[in-house]
Amino acid sequence: MIVTPVSRLFGLKYPIFQGGMAWVADAQLASAVSNGGGLGIISAMNLDADYLREQIRLCREMTDQAFGVNIMLMSPHAGDCAQVVPVVPSVAIARRVAREGACAVIAEGCEAGGHIGELTTLTLVPQVADAVDIPVIAAGGIADGRGVAAALMLGAQGVQCGTRFLAAEECTIPQCFKDKVVSARDIDTMVTGRRLGHPVRALKNSYMLEFAKREADISISNEELEAFGSGALWRAARQGDMATGCIMAGQAAALVKETLPAKEIMRGMFEEAQALLEGAGQWLA
Amino acid sequence: MIVTPVSRLFGLKYPIFQGGMAWVADAQLASAVSNGGGLGIISAMNLDADYLREQIRLCREMTDQAFGVNIMLMSPHAGDCAQVVPVVPSVAIARRVAREGACAVIAEGCEAGGHIGELTTLTLVPQVADAVDIPVIAAGGIADGRGVAAALMLGAQGVQCGTRFLAAEECTIPQCFKDKVVSARDIDTMVTGRRLGHPVRALKNSYMLEFAKREADISISNEELEAFGSGALWRAARQGDMATGCIMAGQAAALVKETLPAKEIMRGMFEEAQALLEGAGQWLA
Repeated sequence: MIVTPVSRLFGLKYPIFQGGMAWVADAQLASAVSNGGGLGIISAMNLDADYLREQIRLCREMTDQAFGVNIMLMSPHAGDCAQVVPVVPSVAIARRVAREGACAVIAEGCEAGGHIGELTTLTLVPQVADAVDIPVIAAGGIADGRGVAAALMLGAQGVQCGTRFLAAEECTIPQCFKDKVVSARDIDTMVTGRRLGHPVRALKNSYMLEFAKREADISISNEELEAFGSGALWRAARQGDMATGCIMAGQAAALVKETLPAKEIMRGMFEEAQALLEGAGQWLA
Repeated sequence: MIVTPVSRLFGLKYPIFQGGMAWVADAQLASAVSNGGGLGIISAMNLDADYLREQIRLCREMTDQAFGVNIMLMSPHAGDCAQVVPVVPSVAIARRVAREGACAVIAEGCEAGGHIGELTTLTLVPQVADAVDIPVIAAGGIADGRGVAAALMLGAQGVQCGTRFLAAEECTIPQCFKDKVVSARDIDTMVTGRRLGHPVRALKNSYMLEFAKREADISISNEELEAFGSGALWRAARQGDMATGCIMAGQAAALVKETLPAKEIMRGMFEEAQALLEGAGQWLA
């Protein structure tokens, strides 16, 4: 067993959070992750409190384990964020949320899917670990035991995985979305939206290529570009539209080889990580 | 001591290569790294054979240890590359060079300085390790023992560092360049040149901001943009021009806190990595 301050703090079998992915992280996925030994997360998105209340109720029906809620701080319903574990893309923001009383911080590198920062996980995690006194959870690019063991070496005490859980059996996205993740190669993600100031990583498809084309066309305004992007994740994740939908996923998609129950995903990752930590002495002479 | 197939294969005290940075990796730096226990590398750039011959002669005068030469495969003087250890940014290229007889491969993530690919070190290294049977050397974002230990967990058997050696005492770049590296924060690098198909990471300065501005201006041709970039690294690295020069450095610059002799850099990194590997049992219960 791998035991860290994060597993102790949150009462988890494994020190792993499931990413709070919009249109993906619902009660069914979150409860499966929590039942499997990690911390399941429900995404509140920017929907109203009724939606969230219903998801929490459903999740409580399906698990007696702890789970979390991912609240977008841009949302008008964000409310009190004192108890959240924030996701940060840089050292300065990590310092600020630590000062404001966060109990842990998720340092997310730009290999992640969805909205991303500029720093990679490998360089961000050790810097955040140096900058704050609270536990650090590494996110971005982690999909197997090697990533977990590397994260611990970098100074993290836990990991958050999004892309890997897209291929969880309990994940309610359409099978075609899961198939895209499982078959993705290393070079199959791309980033758009830099011009808008909020870059997004997703799998390359017609939608992403068209977005990139429009982004490069200065005759298209930022407002038109935002409008073009509107609803794209929903189309992919809820309607299974693989052409005009935005198939958000991180570079770790290339490390995802199969669809498995959430519990098996975590068991496999942490068995592999444990073997690596146990075998660390092989390098020592 | 940390001993891996890479340290054995190349006869090194530490399994570390110094990056073959253009206008930086000369006989003085390479010999210092080789004398200190790593593999020093001389950059051949695209200069003629006389320059390289002279650098090799100088390096041989300064060390009786092995050192390498970084040959740009775009260079007209590239010649036979059978004995090189190539740098690769993706799985397909790793497979190809392994097939062509490379004895090891350097998997370099996009957090590196200079010319970069798209994949981060954290996601690239395990994929390359899965794809080839030769030793993998992780590059990009590694500047301390945490990065070394993480690289080993990801499936690498060694590391290559460029940015960290910019702050080696023996590095012949101007002090002002070293000062910029040592004082860099996490968010102080940026990437330009994506439009040209060969993105470059460097520290933010007037030159980089101006390049980004021109890159976004479609009235400026690619040829004009290339011309604007020409000589920029040379101005920074050889003339100490911190305004109109391109201060190539990776995200790991933020992890570089002081200027030290190359030998001390490596000793510190590998002592830290060794302590992490020895302490890996702390996570096991």
